[in-house]
Amino acid sequence: MANISKKVSWSGRGDDRGERTPLLNGAEDGKYNRHLSGGGIFNIGRLSTVDLEEITPEEDIVRSRPKEIPHNAKLLSLKYESLDYDNSENQLFLEEERRMSHMGFRCLETRRWVICGLIGFLTGLIACLIDIAVEKLAGYKYSAVKQNIEKFTEFGGLSISLILWAVLNSAFVMVGAIAVAFFEPIAAGSGIPQIKCYLNGVKIPRVVRLKTLAIKVFGVICSVAGGLAVGKEGPMIHSGAVVAAGVSQGRSTSLKKDFKIFEYFRRDTEKRDFVSAGAAAGVSAAFGAPVGGVLFSLEEGASFWNQMLTWRIFFASMISTFTLNFFLSIYHGKPGELSSPGLINFGRFDGDSVQYNLYEIPLFIIMGALGGVLGALFNVINYWLTIFRIRYIHRPCLQVMEAMLVAAVTATVSFAMIYFSNDCQPLGQDNTEEYSLQLFCADGEYNSMATAFFNTPERSVRSLFHNPPGSYNPLTLGVFTLAYFVLAVWTYGLTVSAGVFIPSLLIGAAWGRLFGILLSTITSSQSIWADPGKYALIGAAAQLGGIVRMTLSLTVILVEATGSVTYGFPIMLVLITAKIVGDYFIEGLYDVHIKLQSVPFLHWEAPPTSHWLTAREVMSSPVTCFNRVEKVGRIVDVLSNTSTNHNGFPVVAHTTENDEPGKICGLILRSQLIVLLKHKVFVERASSRLSHRKLQLKDFRDAYPRFPPIQSIHVSQDERECMMDLTEFMNPTPYTVPQETSLPRVFKLFRALGLRHLVVVDNENGVVGLVTRKDLARYHLGKDGLEELHLAQT
Amino acid sequence: MANISKKVSWSGRGDDRGERTPLLNGAEDGKYNRHLSGGGIFNIGRLSTVDLEEITPEEDIVRSRPKEIPHNAKLLSLKYESLDYDNSENQLFLEEERRMSHMGFRCLETRRWVICGLIGFLTGLIACLIDIAVEKLAGYKYSAVKQNIEKFTEFGGLSISLILWAVLNSAFVMVGAIAVAFFEPIAAGSGIPQIKCYLNGVKIPRVVRLKTLAIKVFGVICSVAGGLAVGKEGPMIHSGAVVAAGVSQGRSTSLKKDFKIFEYFRRDTEKRDFVSAGAAAGVSAAFGAPVGGVLFSLEEGASFWNQMLTWRIFFASMISTFTLNFFLSIYHGKPGELSSPGLINFGRFDGDSVQYNLYEIPLFIIMGALGGVLGALFNVINYWLTIFRIRYIHRPCLQVMEAMLVAAVTATVSFAMIYFSNDCQPLGQDNTEEYSLQLFCADGEYNSMATAFFNTPERSVRSLFHNPPGSYNPLTLGVFTLAYFVLAVWTYGLTVSAGVFIPSLLIGAAWGRLFGILLSTITSSQSIWADPGKYALIGAAAQLGGIVRMTLSLTVILVEATGSVTYGFPIMLVLITAKIVGDYFIEGLYDVHIKLQSVPFLHWEAPPTSHWLTAREVMSSPVTCFNRVEKVGRIVDVLSNTSTNHNGFPVVAHTTENDEPGKICGLILRSQLIVLLKHKVFVERASSRLSHRKLQLKDFRDAYPRFPPIQSIHVSQDERECMMDLTEFMNPTPYTVPQETSLPRVFKLFRALGLRHLVVVDNENGVVGLVTRKDLARYHLGKDGLEELHLAQT
Repeated sequence: MANISKKVSWSGRGDDRGERTPLLNGAEDGKYNRHLSGGGIFNIGRLSTVDLEEITPEEDIVRSRPKEIPHNAKLLSLKYESLDYDNSENQLFLEEERRMSHMGFRCLETRRWVICGLIGFLTGLIACLIDIAVEKLAGYKYSAVKQNIEKFTEFGGLSISLILWAVLNSAFVMVGAIAVAFFEPIAAGSGIPQIKCYLNGVKIPRVVRLKTLAIKVFGVICSVAGGLAVGKEGPMIHSGAVVAAGVSQGRSTSLKKDFKIFEYFRRDTEKRDFVSAGAAAGVSAAFGAPVGGVLFSLEEGASFWNQMLTWRIFFASMISTFTLNFFLSIYHGKPGELSSPGLINFGRFDGDSVQYNLYEIPLFIIMGALGGVLGALFNVINYWLTIFRIRYIHRPCLQVMEAMLVAAVTATVSFAMIYFSNDCQPLGQDNTEEYSLQLFCADGEYNSMATAFFNTPERSVRSLFHNPPGSYNPLTLGVFTLAYFVLAVWTYGLTVSAGVFIPSLLIGAAWGRLFGILLSTITSSQSIWADPGKYALIGAAAQLGGIVRMTLSLTVILVEATGSVTYGFPIMLVLITAKIVGDYFIEGLYDVHIKLQSVPFLHWEAPPTSHWLTAREVMSSPVTCFNRVEKVGRIVDVLSNTSTNHNGFPVVAHTTENDEPGKICGLILRSQLIVLLKHKVFVERASSRLSHRKLQLKDFRDAYPRFPPIQSIHVSQDERECMMDLTEFMNPTPYTVPQETSLPRVFKLFRALGLRHLVVVDNENGVVGLVTRKDLARYHLGKDGLEELHLAQT
Repeated sequence: MANISKKVSWSGRGDDRGERTPLLNGAEDGKYNRHLSGGGIFNIGRLSTVDLEEITPEEDIVRSRPKEIPHNAKLLSLKYESLDYDNSENQLFLEEERRMSHMGFRCLETRRWVICGLIGFLTGLIACLIDIAVEKLAGYKYSAVKQNIEKFTEFGGLSISLILWAVLNSAFVMVGAIAVAFFEPIAAGSGIPQIKCYLNGVKIPRVVRLKTLAIKVFGVICSVAGGLAVGKEGPMIHSGAVVAAGVSQGRSTSLKKDFKIFEYFRRDTEKRDFVSAGAAAGVSAAFGAPVGGVLFSLEEGASFWNQMLTWRIFFASMISTFTLNFFLSIYHGKPGELSSPGLINFGRFDGDSVQYNLYEIPLFIIMGALGGVLGALFNVINYWLTIFRIRYIHRPCLQVMEAMLVAAVTATVSFAMIYFSNDCQPLGQDNTEEYSLQLFCADGEYNSMATAFFNTPERSVRSLFHNPPGSYNPLTLGVFTLAYFVLAVWTYGLTVSAGVFIPSLLIGAAWGRLFGILLSTITSSQSIWADPGKYALIGAAAQLGGIVRMTLSLTVILVEATGSVTYGFPIMLVLITAKIVGDYFIEGLYDVHIKLQSVPFLHWEAPPTSHWLTAREVMSSPVTCFNRVEKVGRIVDVLSNTSTNHNGFPVVAHTTENDEPGKICGLILRSQLIVLLKHKVFVERASSRLSHRKLQLKDFRDAYPRFPPIQSIHVSQDERECMMDLTEFMNPTPYTVPQETSLPRVFKLFRALGLRHLVVVDNENGVVGLVTRKDLARYHLGKDGLEELHLAQT
């Protein structure tokens, strides 16, 4: 039997939960050893927002020695709220739904499609903007540097070229990093972990705001143009999500502009659906992979698979890739030619070379395993680097400096590699290299290392896939792999907007091509292993799979991006192998980062050995309940209590004056109560002033999603004595479970329905506890079986 | 507000439900107008199994005038049971789970992967067998007929060739139809509607048995070799599902062979997961589309999306297509060349022709709409044809005769078309037509109509996609489209195993190519519309989409089958258009057939206008409950009561002697009670005979899935006085909802968790009703808003 004997600690304050009293009587065995004292508080970089006045002495002690808790991946933050995927079906809502005719629902559905079309269109436009901006800026940069290099190659003094390159890079990166670090830190990175969390049901603050989008787009242009080992594809997913969240609400709270449209969709359920569509549209635009986009959304987010939703997501993806194609085709001067894919263009794998043989399957598996190991290595190094960054590089200016340093180092390393390489290749007739450097090569030849380094990473990947055999010598590839691996690891996690897809592909393509070349050398039969480009593709898949560990969606994305279905099977095989091997060492990169942020992320299933835990042990108890008709004063007091900070309150049939718990008759949310208080919906007022407007669903929607804090609402002493009737506003049919329900069962209910609160009742339907996301996310499978995470305030 | 004023009728007997008393007091408005009397009984072909002794006088009257209920699509059959996707977490189960170590769960997971591998492998083998058998048989047939035709072309007397052809066709079809009609009627058709139902959670009798598989495989070989307008691809999905159900259980009840492995997986939850994998493997083998297979399973079945499950499904798909490729490559004499796709090979779209332009998009949309209209026409005709068949052609020998007639007519029509066609085309150098007929053409030419008709449909599709411009003249294509459309409509629904995918594609490819040719004639610019093959592909997608109405999975299947990602976007566009247009007229073909079988199919969401219905109105009430410790006699009586035939019984804390309903404390299934009765687990015995073996989960698993009927269990008069303690065996934590819960909310819970029974409780947790699948499936969206289906015994 599994055995928990870890110290569990938490502080009394936290969303959704009251002061916690462990109920040990129901435990299967007496092996619990819970201590209420001690640590569990840790600050993660700039995310720490514990106000000074709230720090209890206990917390203070912990803050003074933060290094005592080295693994903050073992913490669970209490600061993240949940999304409410479950509709609050209160009387107002039901009345509205019942008033609506069949045509009304049709209109709504049509509006959903229109929104998805808009999401796709705008996401495509943004992708287009990023692409063109990056191409222009990078073009200027490389032209300038190339001219400079050519000038100084003859006369000597190439160090000036190096300095020019490094300064240009650093300048670009500095601008981007400043924007991110000082104005919107949430825009850092690829945004994929954040979107994963959002789709999982965690409300990440500021993640889908317009400002985040602006900084993200600006940041990614800067960092790619700045020559960092990053891609512009990952951030597209985040951008799409923000677009979706904005468009679907028909207003921008940042711009204080309300278009008064799409008001029906102003709730978490609808918004989240649209955000999945936005994420899919982002993937679709980034890789020209509409199906891959849909699968990404589903693989990462939707446990709530629904056919109509899927079609809408699909539609958004389609429109997005179409818009991008259309505008890019105009930009490239061939308007209307739509056959080119998304932001990244891997080129087509065509003709006779597109085949593989049975005896290559074991080789692919070996490459998959290699990718898994290298990916795990990447993740481990990045994990430690991130911990280091969390501890020591959390001031914005330090972050900007680090980013500039990386940019300069990247330029230097690239330059050194090109300089010391003597791998000269003849220029082909169809010179596909846009910035081919002659350097010290003979006339009519170019430096092969430069095709890999002196280029945007997308072009380098394409060269590795498609350049004819013999374009690279093995040493070049080996050194490049090593150098780029180090640079990419260092770069991911910097305070810049950037993705990890392309660097991963590039590393993989390099060692994959190397693998192919070595194979043909060993077997010394050029004919069979004719195409090192094939191995480059497989290597790229293996490396990317080893780092991010997606399987289904990644297969489709790669298949769509390469335009070749033939390699579908090997790619899958390689991705699955990479995942299995990689998972043996460490989780995927995004999961590592999610864990490091202590997000209460719910996985697909409860840990398998958790059957001996029941709702009784898992739930928070006692629960703060309200009566159907409650005194305003009590409500204000409860809401103002910063030490509990609950978000959902069961409504019970009678007060809990006696020992017996009150019978459940509904559930009301903090946000609803705040709107009620703001509009002063008191029983006394309703009877005295008949003219008083009846509260409508619209009032709740207008306040969504940034409900005012309780402190901003003034309630006079007289009003405190009034009563509030919650009957009309509470959800009268919250889902409940009995205390004996096993954790997996609770988990399944929670996950399948996207719940935020689950009320635990006794035999008589009395409220005995409340299960929230954190209560479930706490339990996870460690090396030695079930582990319980610490809860922390950060 | 929506308004139901239809007559609702039902008979008191039915799975999961008691005698129904409408509780009108809770209705939102008083517009209900329910009559307990009258109709609702209708026999669907051979599916009618109402025993004579069960017919009440009322029913008798109805049976004598079945034509009074013309739309049996408006009925809901009570004879289908539900699957139990929700685990019964009783004490036995929890004890087993708790005993299991972390390693134990790993082993289980590994075993799941092994099973999925096996499923893929066997499915691939079956696909291979079908392919080779069809190719051989069709080869013999066409060679014989071709020789005969060539012989008689010179001397005259081609009518003998016609007779030979017709007789050969009819003979093949007769054999296949006899096998299906007499031995396993469930093996008729493509099996996709049945698998859809199974994945939806409806237990279709005999659908996943070994015998069904054998007949299905044999039948499909016969019908394809018999030259019917059918494909061999659809039945692969059914075959894969049967393989999955068989392998995952580690035994065959048909063969009475128990391998004593995989015993853990002997329950509905696990079996259903494996069946999804099998269906995916089937698609994957049929179309060489592993990703398409996964999407098919998800689109059709899984509301319970789970990442690990998805990967396993993906794995099974991969293995399946790999196995098929591998063995076919050996069969074709090129062992190890794995680049060819599945059963169907559309050929590759390569080179310069693979592109499209902006101004073609509207054309694609028009084609999509056309496909939608034609598809709807197909479905409407087939709907009426099926109703006709249900009424008049329900005896097996009639069914066999109809199938033979269709086979003969198909041969005759084909022959006539070839005979009267004078579309001669020169033989190319690379003569890809295997059975090109010269007939009356000059030497070095062949009859173009013959390439379409005198061929397996797969080859015809490929020819239409890839033959160079000018291979067909427009008239040929027009006539062919018309003839094949009629034949295909007539053929679908015959008592043979066959799929509708390929005929749909063929029809679409024909008119699509015609469309392309006409376009280039109108615009008289050959260069732009150079490739009619492209339009053939788009037409094929449109027609198929218009008939079956799948979107996401079909896109991927077509993309994977053609090996071209470029056309992904147009294909999607066309499929979505076809779906929207088609849905305006009638549902998809599979849904039409599911409705005609009156299966209680749960769609993705509750009808939108159903918010004003609550659990109180929907539930069955009163419910037969048991006490925790119940008298054996009462249990036997309740189970033997054929007029109720319940399947799930809430267990309550005290008897319902007084008016108050008993408090829920568990739920027990008929199958569990039967096992308990069989093993005589009585309280008295437990105390008297200590040696009596304790009942284990294994005993339940051994009896799964064919639990003996209650009649086969002998309970003596003495034993009837004994008591049975259900505590250990019941599910102590069934999901419950309060009476006020709205229908959409109940629906969501039901669908998301795959429930079979949902207990409705009052404020005090007393059992007041039970919601089952039929209670929810009854409500559906008609033309004028919410409609309620009749419940019928058939």
